[in-house]
Amino acid sequence: MPQDRIDIRIDNGLLVTCDSEDNVIKNGWIAVQHNEIVMIGKTGSEAKPDASDIIDAEGGIVMPGLINTHTHLPMSLFRGLADDLPLMEWLNNHIFPREATHINPESVYMATLLSCAEMLLSGTTTCCDGYFYEDSVAEAVRQTGMRAVLGHGVIDYPAPGIDNPDQNVAHALAFTEKWMGRTDLIIPSIFCHSAYTCSENTLKKAKAAADQNQLLFQIHAAETAGEKETMLSNHGVTPLQYLDRIGVLDENTLIVHGVWMDAMDIKIVSTRKAKISHCPESNMKLGSGIAPVQEQLNAGITVGIGTDSCASNNDLDMLSEIDCAAKLQKVKYLDPTILDAKTVLKMATIDGAGAIGIDHLTGSLEPGKQADMIIVDIKKPHMIPMYNPFSHLVYSARGSDVRDVMVAGRMLMRNRKLLTIDMNAVAASEYFMTD
Amino acid sequence: MPQDRIDIRIDNGLLVTCDSEDNVIKNGWIAVQHNEIVMIGKTGSEAKPDASDIIDAEGGIVMPGLINTHTHLPMSLFRGLADDLPLMEWLNNHIFPREATHINPESVYMATLLSCAEMLLSGTTTCCDGYFYEDSVAEAVRQTGMRAVLGHGVIDYPAPGIDNPDQNVAHALAFTEKWMGRTDLIIPSIFCHSAYTCSENTLKKAKAAADQNQLLFQIHAAETAGEKETMLSNHGVTPLQYLDRIGVLDENTLIVHGVWMDAMDIKIVSTRKAKISHCPESNMKLGSGIAPVQEQLNAGITVGIGTDSCASNNDLDMLSEIDCAAKLQKVKYLDPTILDAKTVLKMATIDGAGAIGIDHLTGSLEPGKQADMIIVDIKKPHMIPMYNPFSHLVYSARGSDVRDVMVAGRMLMRNRKLLTIDMNAVAASEYFMTD
Repeated sequence: MPQDRIDIRIDNGLLVTCDSEDNVIKNGWIAVQHNEIVMIGKTGSEAKPDASDIIDAEGGIVMPGLINTHTHLPMSLFRGLADDLPLMEWLNNHIFPREATHINPESVYMATLLSCAEMLLSGTTTCCDGYFYEDSVAEAVRQTGMRAVLGHGVIDYPAPGIDNPDQNVAHALAFTEKWMGRTDLIIPSIFCHSAYTCSENTLKKAKAAADQNQLLFQIHAAETAGEKETMLSNHGVTPLQYLDRIGVLDENTLIVHGVWMDAMDIKIVSTRKAKISHCPESNMKLGSGIAPVQEQLNAGITVGIGTDSCASNNDLDMLSEIDCAAKLQKVKYLDPTILDAKTVLKMATIDGAGAIGIDHLTGSLEPGKQADMIIVDIKKPHMIPMYNPFSHLVYSARGSDVRDVMVAGRMLMRNRKLLTIDMNAVAASEYFMTD
Repeated sequence: MPQDRIDIRIDNGLLVTCDSEDNVIKNGWIAVQHNEIVMIGKTGSEAKPDASDIIDAEGGIVMPGLINTHTHLPMSLFRGLADDLPLMEWLNNHIFPREATHINPESVYMATLLSCAEMLLSGTTTCCDGYFYEDSVAEAVRQTGMRAVLGHGVIDYPAPGIDNPDQNVAHALAFTEKWMGRTDLIIPSIFCHSAYTCSENTLKKAKAAADQNQLLFQIHAAETAGEKETMLSNHGVTPLQYLDRIGVLDENTLIVHGVWMDAMDIKIVSTRKAKISHCPESNMKLGSGIAPVQEQLNAGITVGIGTDSCASNNDLDMLSEIDCAAKLQKVKYLDPTILDAKTVLKMATIDGAGAIGIDHLTGSLEPGKQADMIIVDIKKPHMIPMYNPFSHLVYSARGSDVRDVMVAGRMLMRNRKLLTIDMNAVAASEYFMTD
């Protein structure tokens, strides 16, 4: 192998691999051929293969691209539109009416480009999304070269693009059929909004559709105390117990939020091998609650991190999200040792990939994995001195410290310049004019 | 006035004044003469005075510089040195031993320059600090041109530069006498570590020294449950009740943390008109607890925001701190309407200035106030679209979005370039070498 010429070699990096042994390699190099990592080495130890393009990490941290396990990309349209409001007033008086008037295939396409630009600029290489007009989301994501698991929203109410709710699962299926195998980077999924907005029949139909094609089944669950009370009074059980009773919890199910989970709920999710997407900043901003993440991890559940939408965060910055996630668990349990930097960084990389079912493809720097990686500049004042790269990435790094981004061996950002998105054109879009 | 030529005019800004009416001026301009704001206007409404230097804000947000009400600047030396550890293990096995071996006048000077660079790059124009070798802190801060309230640390143990604790108050006084009236930008203060590390006699002596010169008296209090238990068992009262009993709580006292405060404690602090510095990220990361900020505000207490040191945060970024502060209160009370964006932004500007006793000088954009202001770029993807500048600054902006920084009419950063600190020289310092 060393004698062959490979496509790209990244030199002079501090490699934080997030592999099964949490290997960190100083003065490391990574060889990329086509869309794959083919070799990883330490300068001076192994012979480096020749490469057509050599990228100097200049001593920066090279790590797997960040994986955002819960987004609604087009909602960047509503960033800061309405904040600090009661959840139902926010949804019913601001978000839903705005969706009715401002959501269309073109606005969804432009807002998705905007969200992808923000994600790339802050080091995210993969996201797991669910919204309406998801075909426009997929077209935009494909243009950017990012990796994404995408699901068309299923809800038992008229929704953007779906006047007749009876057709909601059919719409979602049509999306998956259109995008199945069309490109390696876009992986279709089924996204049901929740058990309080979808009937048992809808949930079962949607889950069956997902199972037919081995697709990820995403659903919001146990987000608020109000939701738990509603489920208890309507069905006599908690949201998770209800989802289990109707048979939609298994290893291909992603529970989004999972804040209001008791010991029994945690045991059920663990037994079913379902996964959880933890969205701390959204749960904080909407006053939903603090998820029992440490207990979920103790039960062996795979937990990834998500930002949720720009309407409830108000950004898509995974580095600020993991900082917040680590600190929030510590203060919940009044224990600073909980959710240490290494644990939360893996939740944002390899465990996030596992949560959305693609850890065989991405989430760590290892030969054979897809070449999804970022280079983080560690020379800025807020990154000096550096004792521990895990601690640095979680507690000190900002999205703006990400210098380069590669997905499947293709550079999507180099020296902070986006290579697949024309931000001037996106920023000039009428959909983002607020005056 | 318009016919006179003034020094600097800032044009084309979205002015977020943080004045008593929370005025926001679109297409606004600000006239600066010497170190003061002399006029504020709206383009097209009032005639603009000629200026020697015109700065184009390019539609960005112009606001008062951020005020960090609690720092230990030299502790950037220990950024990421030891994280995710129990508080006492962290202090006794890592921080205190490191201070004994690595803290000297030169390391304090260099680390303070590093911290000032980080603060300026993230929009902070004023900080309130307490540490040892504070004379070196003051020399470094003076070089940078920042505004600061500085106190030499008082603790009843041998400390860096103070072998004999009997001399601790004398040392602190010598510092205040040296810096009193020496420069407008450095305001001396007295900083006592806490009621569990200082005797009643020390606290009274230190407070008397502060009162003699009308100086701010800073003290950590009610940070952890353990501290509260210790005070209850040793003195039979809570930390705040104890400080009140010995007579050190008044309008010139800054309570740092104030996490474990009950209704009586809040009533006492409110009655005494003492101020509070709220440090949410430090309280989270150390697992200390969530301060009852909403109840403190309801009681009429002036509460500012602080980052605490780089060893317990691990940064000095006030924009991430206010984002976290707003979200943390919402999740504490399970109410998204609590600590709205406008309230928390004022805590980081005019209320922060009030908390440290300098709101007559800074904290808002108003004629007669010192010209301490920043320009925030709002053109980046994560800042698009913009509906509400308060929401944007709190929930979307990052330290890296701050483009320019002015303190007392002097530009300290322009287009992200630091004008008073040679970062290459600072970064090369032996004190930041970790290998």
